[in-house]
Amino acid sequence: MRIAIVGAGALGLYYGAMLQRAGNDVSFILRRDYEAIRTNGLHVYSVDGDFHLERVKGYKTASEIGEVDLVIVGLKTFANHMFGELISPLVGKQTIIVTLQNGLGNEEALATHFGADRIIGGVAFLCANRGVPGVVHHLGEGRIIIGEYHGNEIGRVSTLAGIFNDSGIPCRAVAELKKARWEKLVWNIPFNGICALMGRTVDILLRHQETRKLIFDIMIEVIDAGNAQDVKEKIKPQFAENLIAFSEGLGPYKPSMLIDRMEGRQLELEAILKIPLTLAKESGVHMPKVEELYALLDLSETENKV
Amino acid sequence: MRIAIVGAGALGLYYGAMLQRAGNDVSFILRRDYEAIRTNGLHVYSVDGDFHLERVKGYKTASEIGEVDLVIVGLKTFANHMFGELISPLVGKQTIIVTLQNGLGNEEALATHFGADRIIGGVAFLCANRGVPGVVHHLGEGRIIIGEYHGNEIGRVSTLAGIFNDSGIPCRAVAELKKARWEKLVWNIPFNGICALMGRTVDILLRHQETRKLIFDIMIEVIDAGNAQDVKEKIKPQFAENLIAFSEGLGPYKPSMLIDRMEGRQLELEAILKIPLTLAKESGVHMPKVEELYALLDLSETENKV
Repeated sequence: MRIAIVGAGALGLYYGAMLQRAGNDVSFILRRDYEAIRTNGLHVYSVDGDFHLERVKGYKTASEIGEVDLVIVGLKTFANHMFGELISPLVGKQTIIVTLQNGLGNEEALATHFGADRIIGGVAFLCANRGVPGVVHHLGEGRIIIGEYHGNEIGRVSTLAGIFNDSGIPCRAVAELKKARWEKLVWNIPFNGICALMGRTVDILLRHQETRKLIFDIMIEVIDAGNAQDVKEKIKPQFAENLIAFSEGLGPYKPSMLIDRMEGRQLELEAILKIPLTLAKESGVHMPKVEELYALLDLSETENKV
Repeated sequence: MRIAIVGAGALGLYYGAMLQRAGNDVSFILRRDYEAIRTNGLHVYSVDGDFHLERVKGYKTASEIGEVDLVIVGLKTFANHMFGELISPLVGKQTIIVTLQNGLGNEEALATHFGADRIIGGVAFLCANRGVPGVVHHLGEGRIIIGEYHGNEIGRVSTLAGIFNDSGIPCRAVAELKKARWEKLVWNIPFNGICALMGRTVDILLRHQETRKLIFDIMIEVIDAGNAQDVKEKIKPQFAENLIAFSEGLGPYKPSMLIDRMEGRQLELEAILKIPLTLAKESGVHMPKVEELYALLDLSETENKV
């Protein structure tokens, strides 16, 4: 299968490497890692075993790649305005586009550009960071849940799930992705948000009783908002407690938004906080603590610090 | 009148200077400004006109001063555990102690040490910063509201108000101070809290729509909590809007908690946020946004930043 990875951060590099190792024909659009990968290939340091791909197809532009069967989008959501430029040359009649991006609004944006029919949504539960150029660290997890953006056909996503599973990426096809999206937000909103705002890792947040309580409160707000989104199966409040217990195991983990902040990148506030806030409000759910977190993060993006 | 100033930050220096200029016998307990004031006196740069006190009684300890008629406490609240050491030598049979400190819990702590009868509470609305040693900047405002801690006798506080007024410090004596304390918290909690947390001045917070909205929401929470404290006259919601309009005029003002943060001092979280949160809870009022602000500020006091 011809696959193109658009947005080759930690997520794109890791999943692309797994798919290539399993025999797929994978091309990456690269920026920071271009030289390193062209010269030395791609190193994956993984909790499941390290491996090295000696020859990796890395390109600077999509037009060098041309049409593919599958586009995997791992782009930072604040770069969604570049969808046209980065993806159009890859899209032929049969091309499927899967977004594994954070937060909400990505399928919609892709559908506007390329038509709803070819869009598949995905939610990735992956702990990975980039290392030096040419290196990606897989710290844990990795499973993906995918579902059609348009309608609830299960056939095509099941086939795609097979390709991921055959590559060692646990993948489940579902008829409705919405619940999984909101479940991921239940983690992403408090941990990405507070870690980035405060410049602290996951373990410090959890060690600190007041913040731990705040995380729990935010999780409950997000669960209530998610459950108001016309999902078939509700997220249970117990999910918050389980997620906090799970996060204990992450240690001094840096969520992607903290890394974005540390490396001077923009934060994914729109997809991870603002759109969920808007949807919650539209469905009559008030999320005061998420609202405050968003306001402070948004302020933190302005540079006028004393 | 023999007056001692305990806690000679911007507030203590300014009010002490005003009282001395009017002819009172004022002694200051000094730390940072000791050398400068002993050598060059005290310079007040004020919106109401600059002045210079050539000879100022500055001491390092209270025992050098001995008993006085009036102790004015301007200490940072996180130093309240030093009340015994800093104030005891100043207290004789007739000595009155007025606290002009921020937040809640100060009268109670003073009463525990020195008896409730001699304690007078005060709320100062003052915009002042310290300059280089020996210099205090009075940027605006300055009025004080005072009231008995114990009971609602108005006689003694009226006399004291007269002394302040005679010194050019607008002062009003009230039978109940609680409302004024909470009114000050309506400003202090959002502006001190957010400015310190985010390292931004008042004008930046107000320019930023999301934060402006957050400030308003927090103000309403504090007003509701204050009104639940068995105050005779309620604070009106309109007070929040007026306060925001007033704050527009402050420009790039740095609230005291932001200055504390910039100068590496502890933050007055207990007096300004934690005690109000506890009292609100006890009276059945939930302040979710204040709670979040407190959790984040409390976290910000831990040093483990990445």
